[in-house]
Amino acid sequence: MLKTGSTQIRIVLVEAQGPLNVGSVARIMKNMGLNHLVLVNPQCDPYGAEARKMAVHGAEILEKATIVSSIPEALKGCQRAIATTCLNRSLPTHLESPKNSLPWLLGYSAALIFGREDRGLTNVELNYAQRFVRIQANDSYPSLNLAQAVAICCYELYQAQLNQQDNSPQSQPNLDSEASLDVLEAYYQDLETILLKIGYLYPHTASSRMEKFRRLYNRAYPSTQEVAMLRGMIRQINWALSNYYGDDT
Amino acid sequence: MLKTGSTQIRIVLVEAQGPLNVGSVARIMKNMGLNHLVLVNPQCDPYGAEARKMAVHGAEILEKATIVSSIPEALKGCQRAIATTCLNRSLPTHLESPKNSLPWLLGYSAALIFGREDRGLTNVELNYAQRFVRIQANDSYPSLNLAQAVAICCYELYQAQLNQQDNSPQSQPNLDSEASLDVLEAYYQDLETILLKIGYLYPHTASSRMEKFRRLYNRAYPSTQEVAMLRGMIRQINWALSNYYGDDT
Repeated sequence: MLKTGSTQIRIVLVEAQGPLNVGSVARIMKNMGLNHLVLVNPQCDPYGAEARKMAVHGAEILEKATIVSSIPEALKGCQRAIATTCLNRSLPTHLESPKNSLPWLLGYSAALIFGREDRGLTNVELNYAQRFVRIQANDSYPSLNLAQAVAICCYELYQAQLNQQDNSPQSQPNLDSEASLDVLEAYYQDLETILLKIGYLYPHTASSRMEKFRRLYNRAYPSTQEVAMLRGMIRQINWALSNYYGDDT
Repeated sequence: MLKTGSTQIRIVLVEAQGPLNVGSVARIMKNMGLNHLVLVNPQCDPYGAEARKMAVHGAEILEKATIVSSIPEALKGCQRAIATTCLNRSLPTHLESPKNSLPWLLGYSAALIFGREDRGLTNVELNYAQRFVRIQANDSYPSLNLAQAVAICCYELYQAQLNQQDNSPQSQPNLDSEASLDVLEAYYQDLETILLKIGYLYPHTASSRMEKFRRLYNRAYPSTQEVAMLRGMIRQINWALSNYYGDDT
């Protein structure tokens, strides 16, 4: 029934520990019309009997799941990414509800990232995303089971897609305008390298300072051209350094 | 944080087969501020290791779960009940979305009923509810895992409660106005008995015809006084029968 929209959205599980959870995730993905599961460094067997038992008719999603070793690999080709978090931690940013934030992924190559069952995502891992979702829950026990959290988010994505169809015709999002996250990530790596090199960053504080840059740029949703421009600027700084200071890097 | 509303809502699982599912249901209930779990004729051990493992900090909800042998027992004292269904079946009624229907339970003694993992609820069982919810899903695989379906519904109840608080002050629902479902059920039993007795109903078609009566009355949300009046009418019919036909029942 649904033609497009959520089919470009991948579900990313980081170091999932429970095969029952991974199987349940595959099932709800199939229920909600999603088909691309990416497992970052899984801590369990996603193809075993336990996962298959819970996946039922979603087993095909387990079979074709992509396994990678890092979040940047998982996000390759994505233009938009949302990470989920249970707690406020020290995130200097706004946590949004699934209903308000997830529709923003529709129509894009996009990822929705979930952390480990027991510890979620680290702050460094959260930083690969542009927006952050928290499922509101009772203060006395706000930590949801992974598969149930995924179910709620997949449900909201499907609802958003149904609403979008109800409101069609609608302008298509411009798929070319926003830089893919791997391009953006390469820029952040370039930036950190150059800032360390010039002594703006110190190794022990680099990551926290880089978080602030990431937030700044992520808020702007830079285009591919803009990121090329930013990276060109860094290349130019490198050129200048080697020419003015005699450094040959 | 949330003061009232969903705390009077019980989750009813009919003949649940999977202890992992029952445990997961307890966890999401605790997450979403619900605490009354009712198990109708459970087909698994809700207190065992598997259920506890999935419940984590929701184990207390398993411990104080009520076990009963029938849906009417599970609904004792409820004023409102919604049943969930995956398929259209032959239900001559409208299936609603969780978002549109579940807020209707808030502030009432109410029940949200879920069926068996493999077969859901029978039509006879569905008839104990006044409204019917279906979680929209992809046509290729619309059947959700029980614990994930419960998660989505508990999430929507919690969202509705948050929205209600946002819109407060709001008129409190009148808790006295609607008859409790066990009172209504007793009336349906009276009605069926009298209709069989007078030959309006035949035993082999009684239940399908009674469904139509149930729908009619359920749509009206009769008050306690109105049900008392309806039952008084049946008593009067019985009195008349014994006096005019010589029957001493």
